[in-house]
Amino acid sequence: MPNFSNVKIVLVNTTHPGNIGASARAMKNMGLNRLTLVQPKDFPSGVALGRAASAVDILESAEIVDSLQEAVKDCGLVICASARSRKIPWPMLSPQEVAQKVAKEMNVTNVALVFGREDSGLNNEELQLGNFHVQIPAQKDYSSLNLAAAVLVICYELHKTELSSINRSTNEEGELWDQEFATREEVEYFYDHLERVMINIDFHDPKNPRQLMQRMRRLFGRIRLDVMELNILRGVLTNIEQSIKRSGNKNK
Amino acid sequence: MPNFSNVKIVLVNTTHPGNIGASARAMKNMGLNRLTLVQPKDFPSGVALGRAASAVDILESAEIVDSLQEAVKDCGLVICASARSRKIPWPMLSPQEVAQKVAKEMNVTNVALVFGREDSGLNNEELQLGNFHVQIPAQKDYSSLNLAAAVLVICYELHKTELSSINRSTNEEGELWDQEFATREEVEYFYDHLERVMINIDFHDPKNPRQLMQRMRRLFGRIRLDVMELNILRGVLTNIEQSIKRSGNKNK
Repeated sequence: MPNFSNVKIVLVNTTHPGNIGASARAMKNMGLNRLTLVQPKDFPSGVALGRAASAVDILESAEIVDSLQEAVKDCGLVICASARSRKIPWPMLSPQEVAQKVAKEMNVTNVALVFGREDSGLNNEELQLGNFHVQIPAQKDYSSLNLAAAVLVICYELHKTELSSINRSTNEEGELWDQEFATREEVEYFYDHLERVMINIDFHDPKNPRQLMQRMRRLFGRIRLDVMELNILRGVLTNIEQSIKRSGNKNK
Repeated sequence: MPNFSNVKIVLVNTTHPGNIGASARAMKNMGLNRLTLVQPKDFPSGVALGRAASAVDILESAEIVDSLQEAVKDCGLVICASARSRKIPWPMLSPQEVAQKVAKEMNVTNVALVFGREDSGLNNEELQLGNFHVQIPAQKDYSSLNLAAAVLVICYELHKTELSSINRSTNEEGELWDQEFATREEVEYFYDHLERVMINIDFHDPKNPRQLMQRMRRLFGRIRLDVMELNILRGVLTNIEQSIKRSGNKNK
């Protein structure tokens, strides 16, 4: 049986409790059971219980948090559902590619699959917390899937991939890694540090940001830093600051 | 665009009108539009309209008939959804295999994809009208999908198969990117520059390299840097050097 105990489905600001219940049912059908709700509008709810059918246990054990940051802070791989292409394109995976990536990494890190609001999805800031985005292929003139339908498609692909990989003896590339992956929270500290240094060296002006930090997030988000790499980068940033300080005060 | 004009979704004796509406939405998302209802319990219905969202046109043009025989009489290929294995084993396909079969045959014949009642599915007589059965892979201890969820999975696989046969030409990661990717040579210049700066800030000692450059290569090598990202990184390195120089000569 697939073991998705490190994989959580995160629903952000869901309006209709029926969608929460239907998502729970879809999850359980496909072998997932960790649900996190970020500020749901109406929960707990009888409507959610009704639509969950025999997946009420998933609703009862759902974690409820105040922000997406909090929901994903212990996750080394975050994938956000996105309907639209953004100003800065983000690495975009198909549901199948998501399943392959999750199958490879869920044994070494926590994984979050994030779904936004029924009417407006995830905002740009939320989307930038994702290492990758996933878009469900759909008809161009009506590509807006119901929330629980989107959850189902992703869970279905996960289940399918796991089923097919269970009988496979070993896996291709990159399965073994010598380091743990950095958590979301550690990576956020790195971005803060990076931004301070880029300001310090006059490369970055927060008043005229030119999407610089988004581009940095997109770049390092694709890499998924491991803990040693993160420590190296933090060390490099610290030495830059010390080198500037040591060799004289910066002329203000 | 896929053309599924010869493919109909047939729902038999559906109890909850919400499932009819949600099925219509899932169909339209995936490019199907022919819906046939065999003796629906409660239709037309406001609940169905609500759940259909922008797929109301499919409900309005739905064909309503008295028996499954009538629904499939003009079809050369009939595939019935079945949750259980039957006394008499029937040729059983996966959703993907259904999609491949339908894609092959829908240009020469009408195709019906048949889904049964919410509580009890299709009876034996109905199942025997199918050329094939389809079973959606699901968790053994809770394999009962919501009706509209089952419709979605099949329509999703149809859409995916059609898409892949239409765009066989486009490539791997297949995503539109706003920048060209850096060449191997440009990336090597970046590594040289990075190494010089790390020496300059006393982070890196080439006499005692501790695999640092290998780790940097593994880090940035996991992604393909695009040209703008490379230019940003080179710019950051240059500004670091200038900041150190400008604020006084480094003590040698």
